Amino acid sequence: MSYRRDFTVQFGQCDPAGIVFYPRYFEMLNAMVEAFFAEALGYSFARIHIEEGCGVPTAHLDVDFHAPSRLGEVLTFTLTVRRIGGSSATFETLVTCGAEKRLTVRQVIVWTGPGLKPARWPKSLADALAAHLEEAP
Amino acid sequence: MSYRRDFTVQFGQCDPAGIVFYPRYFEMLNAMVEAFFAEALGYSFARIHIEEGCGVPTAHLDVDFHAPSRLGEVLTFTLTVRRIGGSSATFETLVTCGAEKRLTVRQVIVWTGPGLKPARWPKSLADALAAHLEEAP
Amino acid sequence: MSYRRDFTVQFGQCDPAGIVFYPRYFEMLNAMVEAFFAEALGYSFARIHIEEGCGVPTAHLDVDFHAPSRLGEVLTFTLTVRRIGGSSATFETLVTCGAEKRLTVRQVIVWTGPGLKPARWPKSLADALAAHLEEAP
Amino acid sequence: MSYRRDFTVQFGQCDPAGIVFYPRYFEMLNAMVEAFFAEALGYSFARIHIEEGCGVPTAHLDVDFHAPSRLGEVLTFTLTVRRIGGSSATFETLVTCGAEKRLTVRQVIVWTGPGLKPARWPKSLADALAAHLEEAP
Repeated sequence: MSYRRDFTVQFGQCDPAGIVFYPRYFEMLNAMVEAFFAEALGYSFARIHIEEGCGVPTAHLDVDFHAPSRLGEVLTFTLTVRRIGGSSATFETLVTCGAEKRLTVRQVIVWTGPGLKPARWPKSLADALAAHLEEAP
Repeated sequence: MSYRRDFTVQFGQCDPAGIVFYPRYFEMLNAMVEAFFAEALGYSFARIHIEEGCGVPTAHLDVDFHAPSRLGEVLTFTLTVRRIGGSSATFETLVTCGAEKRLTVRQVIVWTGPGLKPARWPKSLADALAAHLEEAP
Repeated sequence: MSYRRDFTVQFGQCDPAGIVFYPRYFEMLNAMVEAFFAEALGYSFARIHIEEGCGVPTAHLDVDFHAPSRLGEVLTFTLTVRRIGGSSATFETLVTCGAEKRLTVRQVIVWTGPGLKPARWPKSLADALAAHLEEAP
Repeated sequence: MSYRRDFTVQFGQCDPAGIVFYPRYFEMLNAMVEAFFAEALGYSFARIHIEEGCGVPTAHLDVDFHAPSRLGEVLTFTLTVRRIGGSSATFETLVTCGAEKRLTVRQVIVWTGPGLKPARWPKSLADALAAHLEEAP
């Protein structure tokens, strides 16, 4: 079961060429992952970072930019969990505008405990992630 | 008639003190003004900047920060048009979290034509702005 | 005695109109204030925020944007301390490009102790700030 | 021959965990690539984007985050050209703090002409890039 969210490309996210400045995609991606944790997994970033002193840093990113995105376009981010490890997980996020592919992101995140050290997923999170697991075809 | 929009404070908008890094408020404010133009005035930033080669740069900002905002809080931005000039306008935006005031922004924007020179508001925009005018009490 | 620092306008700081997106000026301004504390006052933000759990949030901003700035231009930020209070200070920062004024910022910052509550300036900081005080003519 | 540049981690680039929010690394990376073009290749982004209406968008990114970076640390970005194609090039950028590796980025950029279409590298740029080519061991 994928998780989906739309982002309208804002003026301040575009560069002098009139297209999205690519670091802004990662701001959107992080907002997307943050919303996925809060809404789909029931575990907000405020809880993870502030209350529990834990974290979910990104360990690896592999990104293909297929086509540029323009001011005012509505981008759909679709996140699928591709792998769940003991203390990590692989997310694949496809960004589209209508039928057009814009970028594909493969991202490995790691669960960290105090001191930013990798730690085992809390049981409830591992279970919640498992419900979104969909191995690549 | 005020225009209102909510923003959830994201992880990437907060600093090591766990509160919103103030330049991020201006990113939200610009997204707010952009949405106000598109939704309330019927004039998108894509149309203004890309199709017409015009602009609405900010000429003046006066901001009071009343209290900090934290990760995960929902901030309500309420924009009121306070003054409409020949080629400028004054917006007042109040940012609240529930009953708490967080910041108040007074902002003068200017309509610019080609070459970034101030120009008279297009008639349809001036009329649309007038419908949102509410002089300060 | 003013404190000065140059910033070259980067591609990612410009908008589709090819000029600096104004929230990026505040990122530069904060980097400027941060460098002023570290280099001119001998008190780094790492020390303030991480080691001491204190802060210097901005309480008020008053900004005049005189003219737009373009990709590749070198902007000079010149900061002068205009007022030192018990737990606050007023900075004036003039941003120029060669002989041209781009923006003028008046900014009130506040020293905060644990829990983000305003507190009296540490003696060494108050003294260091005083050395940069230059009242407006 | 590698190209090198230092970045001090700023307050506004760190998240509530006190470490660099990863999209900020890409802002630094783009500033790095921009400086590489201007200083090492003699071809500024203002010339590419504004004067010539061309571009150098990123088509692919592959990033390993080895360890987090903290407020005030000085990061050294070292860029090496790994491959030059007809209209693309592969850059490898290693980010270190002293002897510690923080991230490794492999990035494919593409030269685009009007309309954002891939085009052959201008001769002078291809030659300048070749002087920085250093195939992976």
